[in-house]
Amino acid sequence: MRHIMSPLDFSVEELDQLLNLANDIEANPKKYAHACDGKKLATLFYEPSTRTRLSFEAAMMNLGGNVLGFSSAASSSATKGETVADTIRMVACYADICAMRHPKEGAPLVASLYSPIPVINAGDGGHQHPTQTLTDLLTIRSLKGRLDNLTIGLCGDLKFGRTVHSLISALVRYTGIRFVLISPEELRIPSYIRDDVLRENNIEFEEVERLEDALPKLDVLYMTRVQKERFFNEEDYVRMKDFYILDKKKMELAPQDMIVMHPLPRVNEIAVEVDDDPRAAYFKQAQYAVYARMALILTLLEVKVC
Amino acid sequence: MRHIMSPLDFSVEELDQLLNLANDIEANPKKYAHACDGKKLATLFYEPSTRTRLSFEAAMMNLGGNVLGFSSAASSSATKGETVADTIRMVACYADICAMRHPKEGAPLVASLYSPIPVINAGDGGHQHPTQTLTDLLTIRSLKGRLDNLTIGLCGDLKFGRTVHSLISALVRYTGIRFVLISPEELRIPSYIRDDVLRENNIEFEEVERLEDALPKLDVLYMTRVQKERFFNEEDYVRMKDFYILDKKKMELAPQDMIVMHPLPRVNEIAVEVDDDPRAAYFKQAQYAVYARMALILTLLEVKVC
Amino acid sequence: MRHIMSPLDFSVEELDQLLNLANDIEANPKKYAHACDGKKLATLFYEPSTRTRLSFEAAMMNLGGNVLGFSSAASSSATKGETVADTIRMVACYADICAMRHPKEGAPLVASLYSPIPVINAGDGGHQHPTQTLTDLLTIRSLKGRLDNLTIGLCGDLKFGRTVHSLISALVRYTGIRFVLISPEELRIPSYIRDDVLRENNIEFEEVERLEDALPKLDVLYMTRVQKERFFNEEDYVRMKDFYILDKKKMELAPQDMIVMHPLPRVNEIAVEVDDDPRAAYFKQAQYAVYARMALILTLLEVKVC
Repeated sequence: MRHIMSPLDFSVEELDQLLNLANDIEANPKKYAHACDGKKLATLFYEPSTRTRLSFEAAMMNLGGNVLGFSSAASSSATKGETVADTIRMVACYADICAMRHPKEGAPLVASLYSPIPVINAGDGGHQHPTQTLTDLLTIRSLKGRLDNLTIGLCGDLKFGRTVHSLISALVRYTGIRFVLISPEELRIPSYIRDDVLRENNIEFEEVERLEDALPKLDVLYMTRVQKERFFNEEDYVRMKDFYILDKKKMELAPQDMIVMHPLPRVNEIAVEVDDDPRAAYFKQAQYAVYARMALILTLLEVKVC
Repeated sequence: MRHIMSPLDFSVEELDQLLNLANDIEANPKKYAHACDGKKLATLFYEPSTRTRLSFEAAMMNLGGNVLGFSSAASSSATKGETVADTIRMVACYADICAMRHPKEGAPLVASLYSPIPVINAGDGGHQHPTQTLTDLLTIRSLKGRLDNLTIGLCGDLKFGRTVHSLISALVRYTGIRFVLISPEELRIPSYIRDDVLRENNIEFEEVERLEDALPKLDVLYMTRVQKERFFNEEDYVRMKDFYILDKKKMELAPQDMIVMHPLPRVNEIAVEVDDDPRAAYFKQAQYAVYARMALILTLLEVKVC
Repeated sequence: MRHIMSPLDFSVEELDQLLNLANDIEANPKKYAHACDGKKLATLFYEPSTRTRLSFEAAMMNLGGNVLGFSSAASSSATKGETVADTIRMVACYADICAMRHPKEGAPLVASLYSPIPVINAGDGGHQHPTQTLTDLLTIRSLKGRLDNLTIGLCGDLKFGRTVHSLISALVRYTGIRFVLISPEELRIPSYIRDDVLRENNIEFEEVERLEDALPKLDVLYMTRVQKERFFNEEDYVRMKDFYILDKKKMELAPQDMIVMHPLPRVNEIAVEVDDDPRAAYFKQAQYAVYARMALILTLLEVKVC
């Protein structure tokens, strides 16, 4: 039995299999409609995250399985002082697999150490969110046809953006990957990514301040939200939040086959006028999120569908 | 593909078909038990409403479908600044049909403009609540055998009562409908209903202050709750809240085949002693709520059951 | 049709049948996987209780049924002033059976008086929690092979512990039961249990202050949590909360075939080092909780599985 705590828990080969499975699910959804009949997913969300929770629930339901759980810590036993280790052993009596979201880094890992059922880290603080990364990889591979030889622009809050850090760490395992890191000075990628991941792996990258400078060279543009709560003060937030807004005009600078991704929810970092551009891939990404999670659930439950 | 925002979105003929379908569901529930196998309903409730939410969930489950969603805004992405337009496009990746409850008027309409899946307005502020109206029409037609040639008493808060306004607007499309509007002076029907709906359609109606005066002539008595939050001050509320209480004694004045309806929850506007009267139809109404929603889901999903 | 409000609602014979059914479910889960196809359980939780709610939901899902409901009063109609009597009659339109948790003693009983569907008391204040008791009885009978001729130690907060009071009341109906009541002076068993249940039924019992003194004679040790909110002041809580902690060292005093039970969640009254002891039965108990509830749902719905 295995858990998934980080996107790197899977080797590149395993990941290939998982993404192949996801694409087969996309092509033949009916084939998988009863793959998890009689099985149950527990969604233990110690902090609310509608998107992640609903995509897990949709994934399990698409496989014929059932879902139970809670959507905020308020309705969990955590308020009674129960440890995550105890909770998971209880939940394992009720469900076959568990997706855990927790504000504390490492909480899903602790759970996995005690769990008799597979645990999926559905986001632990600013740490990891492996199913987002799986979704991103699936989206890129499905829409661009490959995960190697790509120039990927990452734009916005690169300092605190967990999504971006995970995606970089996952992509450096492929060949011919180049990054263009687009952010204000204050929100540049942290050194443990720049030095320990990018430089360590001899990955070609550049850091730019203007989205316009990066756009012409990109195969993929990954936009991120500038989260107000990450800023030290209101003033900095107000000054910077609109710097990196993608609009129709900027899109004219981008190649015709570039795709625009975003983990959602977006606030205003992508103007709604971009939504109708065929290169806008962020809502497709939300659909791939379901296929990626379906593939992951099947893989962790070791369910084979012929 | 179509949405339902208002009870008037359906023509009288379409409504007839929908109510016929609901009655067939009532008569042959097993026939429909797998009509929505593999389909998912998203219940997006930006404000809590147990009754409406549970009746939608029961409806979808009775059809063999699954349900996912949230029951209050606290656990939604709205808190992260996401627009309803973005939320619905995300949710469309997870579900086949959506019921949305929102404190803001028009929010479900906005969602429907962007939605690739049918959106049902499950109540938007004081504006519309079409599935309540469908339920009311189904209840009247099922128990009285017709939707025309009826004298309908509407009692209580006729000023702020969304339910009552919608029911009037739906019923004026039938012939031989007469209304008796029973309310205190302060809570009389607003002029946009009196003038633009009733008078405009040459509908016979009278306004009375005493429930006793109306009862003998009614085919249907529709009671509504006097909601404390609608009043400008506590004093007015206390003075008026008990004016229009239906009890056993008043029921003696009513015809033997009159039915008493109420959208529920009731507080004390219908004395519990009335519950055992065979004319009390408000709990049957709660049952018709499920059939009406089942019929609506089938209709919007264009599922045919033979 | 019947409801379950108290563990004593079932005769010893009926209880035997129910526990037999639970054991058959444990041995042949697939046989029951579709026993409640098309049926719905409403979980009406007016106060949060993840453990109880999830075990009910898992139970219904294991039987092929569906679940709807709410997990806290905030999202219920109670806030609009609706009585429990009205709520249950509404819910009966949506579901086939109901599990109700309520902070007020007697609320599920009131519901049952008006309900057209079976109501299960899933805990009403400090009063009753019959499915916990069924779980406890099933655990003891399954692991010890019998419900008679047992010496049972009850440790911790015996004054306010609803679980303990219910278990005592249920066990005194069997022969050869002896209790060792282990608690600080301040948290001794109340006189209405000591006099009206134990002495009234001529049950052998002793009250001791030290866990060490009791351990050697026990077949079953039932630990309970010392709930902070039960104490009159912080000081008393701090002084006493660690008195009755079960650890590896104390376990050396216990018989090799004793079992350790706990209703969970535990805080620190059982040291985690005890978890690996084969006598630790509290996580198995969480599993039996599901089987007990499955058996109860089948029994109340009068579903026969051959």
